Amino acid sequence: MTRLFNDPSNFPEEARLGLVAANRDKLMAVPGGVVRSTRSEPGTVAVVIGGGSGHYPTFAGLVGQGLAHGAVMGNLFCSPSSQQVYSVAKAAHNGGGVLLSFGNYAGDVLHFGEARERLIAEGIPCEIVLVTDDVASAPLEEIDKRRGIAGDLTVFKAAAAAAENGLSLEAVVVVAKEANRCTRSFGVAFEGCTLPGADDSLFHVPEGRMAIGLGIHGEPGISEADIPTADELADMLVNRLLQEVPEGIEISGARVAVVLNGLGTVKYEELFVIYRKVDELLQSAGIHIVEPDVGELVTSLDMAGVSLTFFWLDQQMEPLWTAAADAPGYRKGSVKPAEALDPAEVEVVVQDAIPEASESSRKLARGVIESLEVLANTVNRNCDLLGQIDAVAGDGDHGIGMQRGSKAALEGANEAFNKGAGAQTVLQWAGQHWSDKAGGTSGAIWRVILKSMGESLGNDRLLSGQRLAAGVINARDQVMAFGKAELGDKTLVDVLAPFADALSREVEKGGELVTCWEVAALTASKAADETAKLLPRVGRARPLAEKSLGTRDAGAVSLALIIQALIPVLKKCEPS
Amino acid sequence: MTRLFNDPSNFPEEARLGLVAANRDKLMAVPGGVVRSTRSEPGTVAVVIGGGSGHYPTFAGLVGQGLAHGAVMGNLFCSPSSQQVYSVAKAAHNGGGVLLSFGNYAGDVLHFGEARERLIAEGIPCEIVLVTDDVASAPLEEIDKRRGIAGDLTVFKAAAAAAENGLSLEAVVVVAKEANRCTRSFGVAFEGCTLPGADDSLFHVPEGRMAIGLGIHGEPGISEADIPTADELADMLVNRLLQEVPEGIEISGARVAVVLNGLGTVKYEELFVIYRKVDELLQSAGIHIVEPDVGELVTSLDMAGVSLTFFWLDQQMEPLWTAAADAPGYRKGSVKPAEALDPAEVEVVVQDAIPEASESSRKLARGVIESLEVLANTVNRNCDLLGQIDAVAGDGDHGIGMQRGSKAALEGANEAFNKGAGAQTVLQWAGQHWSDKAGGTSGAIWRVILKSMGESLGNDRLLSGQRLAAGVINARDQVMAFGKAELGDKTLVDVLAPFADALSREVEKGGELVTCWEVAALTASKAADETAKLLPRVGRARPLAEKSLGTRDAGAVSLALIIQALIPVLKKCEPS
Repeated sequence: MTRLFNDPSNFPEEARLGLVAANRDKLMAVPGGVVRSTRSEPGTVAVVIGGGSGHYPTFAGLVGQGLAHGAVMGNLFCSPSSQQVYSVAKAAHNGGGVLLSFGNYAGDVLHFGEARERLIAEGIPCEIVLVTDDVASAPLEEIDKRRGIAGDLTVFKAAAAAAENGLSLEAVVVVAKEANRCTRSFGVAFEGCTLPGADDSLFHVPEGRMAIGLGIHGEPGISEADIPTADELADMLVNRLLQEVPEGIEISGARVAVVLNGLGTVKYEELFVIYRKVDELLQSAGIHIVEPDVGELVTSLDMAGVSLTFFWLDQQMEPLWTAAADAPGYRKGSVKPAEALDPAEVEVVVQDAIPEASESSRKLARGVIESLEVLANTVNRNCDLLGQIDAVAGDGDHGIGMQRGSKAALEGANEAFNKGAGAQTVLQWAGQHWSDKAGGTSGAIWRVILKSMGESLGNDRLLSGQRLAAGVINARDQVMAFGKAELGDKTLVDVLAPFADALSREVEKGGELVTCWEVAALTASKAADETAKLLPRVGRARPLAEKSLGTRDAGAVSLALIIQALIPVLKKCEPS
Repeated sequence: MTRLFNDPSNFPEEARLGLVAANRDKLMAVPGGVVRSTRSEPGTVAVVIGGGSGHYPTFAGLVGQGLAHGAVMGNLFCSPSSQQVYSVAKAAHNGGGVLLSFGNYAGDVLHFGEARERLIAEGIPCEIVLVTDDVASAPLEEIDKRRGIAGDLTVFKAAAAAAENGLSLEAVVVVAKEANRCTRSFGVAFEGCTLPGADDSLFHVPEGRMAIGLGIHGEPGISEADIPTADELADMLVNRLLQEVPEGIEISGARVAVVLNGLGTVKYEELFVIYRKVDELLQSAGIHIVEPDVGELVTSLDMAGVSLTFFWLDQQMEPLWTAAADAPGYRKGSVKPAEALDPAEVEVVVQDAIPEASESSRKLARGVIESLEVLANTVNRNCDLLGQIDAVAGDGDHGIGMQRGSKAALEGANEAFNKGAGAQTVLQWAGQHWSDKAGGTSGAIWRVILKSMGESLGNDRLLSGQRLAAGVINARDQVMAFGKAELGDKTLVDVLAPFADALSREVEKGGELVTCWEVAALTASKAADETAKLLPRVGRARPLAEKSLGTRDAGAVSLALIIQALIPVLKKCEPS
């Protein structure tokens, strides 16, 4: 378990600062993550990788000469915000455009995608290549739905070496896609990891058993079995990967880069025992192994698990794999040290200024802050419950993510308020802080909700039922457009949409605001319960108490709880 | 826990082969361990390191250009045998003599010392430098009694860089001793590791508590405390090390190499959170940190612990620390790849030939094998008990070590017998296999016991009471000379000595051999129980069931059990 931390909510940030302190010759901290502290050849493509923290040396440990130019560092197991991605990309950009590469997770896809649009709008060429190497996460026909796990390393390595060689952004994209096409991973897990300050593991696997294909955040696997011998496990992993050799590769005589990865507590000696057999099996299949890596490369804190990755090489890919690299967590060959970069040369993105606000909007902003306090307290009280509900069909971090986000939102709101902001700006800062500090899908969604509400309330208006209802409708529309979720998809939309409709209907009837909200809140609660009737769309290996917790969507439940909790606040700040 | 293995007794050997398979460009397997697979400058000193397996990347992961020339790899947490040390040193020797360097543990000191004598006898200059960096294991006045922990890395690094620079053996010894004088470590542990196949951890620390100064095999610490915050822990570790700055160093303005080491399940993000504070504290003390290492460098399988090492640098030491190195588990700077070595050029040590034996000694050899079977079965049956007794005052591996050793002894005996060996040679091979496969202090002692018995029985004699009694007396004398233990030191001598006396006395009286043995066996059992009355000489932080297990010496108990178990065998092979 994770035992050493200060305030758990500062853990990822303190780890980032410690990493940089230990590697000042290689890394520099910038808002949102790290970039190289050494000079790159001007005009070359910047490879920016990233995702949640907790996977060291992935992602920040893979920044350095011959590897990535920057890493965006989200919270533990949470995608970074688009602001973070944008900030790191701006700092890493070297005149040759930016390749954003990361594992295929919904939150990352949202945030990196948003950042890409913003960069392109500013005239910085930017492309995205997803890593989709985990064969257990979807069938081959749906390869685009597969998750990225330890194959991150081979894809990043090939793309970065191509960038280092001076290839154009288009050419680097082709290389990265080809590397991803030729990379396959398969893994097993024996026990989950413990987040700092949590009482229990994120998930459990029964003792003596192994979850096959379980994701690096505990996402559903494909089956469960007794723990086999090391040789049997090697056999299983190798055979599964040999079933899916990329088109155009002949097994006999093939050349392959092999990565045998420990997730955290499967230790080196165990990995070597397994590798001994992997080496034997591949040799007997006539496959030539090129510069294998055996160690901890994509971890999940102290999770017990192991994965095997094959990166099938051709004449183009092999020199990219074997090229020298010198990052804090990955070194090979001899790299000629580059000149140190003057920090003053690196572009640092700062937050926007505060627009003017009317006296009435300043008063309303106070009410907004009170609402955000209630929101944060509600999440706090229900944090464990939300985590447990999420663990049935998700990765169990909804409660922690919401807690971290709502706390950050309140801090951001207070900061903006103290700088003289009105209601809209306070909500906008709150949303941005939520997303920056908590990341994840819920961080992205709540940023949209708070921002949409703010647009309706403005920086110069009084509160009215119409404006509040319009804000909720606006939030619903923007969330649905942003998250691409429909009613019935078992997301927070299943609560937000009926609530928005009900609130508008009641406000049109002309009731008092608090009464309208109370009626609509009832609709929201019922809708949250309804989500339990929709079956989860994926099977899972996890032995959790599904029955007692139901299969409700955690995001929907938390929204309904928050709506309910806001009633007393509205009673106090009825429009004057 | 350690989950992935095949036959647990093959675990270290399979890990060694997997390590070599993953690093063929750097390592080559030789009997007893690994050596570089690249050519070193002829005439330079060979730095040979080693100790028990289970500490990767220490020791074998630290073999490569700029670091060690060879590593001797004992069983898990057990010292290698002198034969293994000799073999690896012969393979690594490059014409410039051999420096043997390792952590200060009794078994290692015994075996490396024996090997050194054998090398010197053959005309190969050989010196030993012990690593004694663990400030918790003895007070400063008794620095020679301190254990070696993560300071292994800094001492090996400095010595190897000096050897690489072409210094003479004498000069490399001076460098290594100076590096050890300037290296201090301090660590804490939260939970023990699990040996492959074991049901439980080697030791436990109560949940929420931390054992301060606990050794890397669970050796006694100095105290226990609640787990503090990361910052408080950093503070504690730094302050303790700053209390003991080596003579001649001024704190303000000092330059120090810092190693923050995770033992296995304290993961990277936690280490970085701690390092952030270490960096801050040293900076505010005016200390300049030179090329810090934060990661897993000296592990103990999946043990939860962390240690901090300071290597105080001067103008001689700093370039040795910062010199480039390229080993499987430790890389820094840019190393120009050396030419690959032809395996045929490496000297491989093979076992000796079988001396002739008489028909009667061949018959006696059968009895010896039967006795070794009984011995192995007795150890097997009592393996858990012996481990539990050992865990009270030792590192808890006595049962596993004896099991592994007695099994290997039986295999060695059978191999020799099948090649035509008599009783003496069978016992000698049995002892050598025991020591080679199990290592540790018990491996060394049992090699001496079996060899001494063999010298008395010869390869051309019949069994007689006199010869058996003389063999036991010989074993007692040689064990006491070899292990430097006196009666009352709470070792196996406390049983062996009274047993030897009693057996001689009974045989002189002229009784039947089996009766004499029975009487002496009773003395042995009583003596084993007596060891419980001698208090352990060191305090410890471990919360084990001391009262129920008593404080008997495990080696004494196992010898008494074996003596008892041999009675039925003697009944069958009474002298004809």
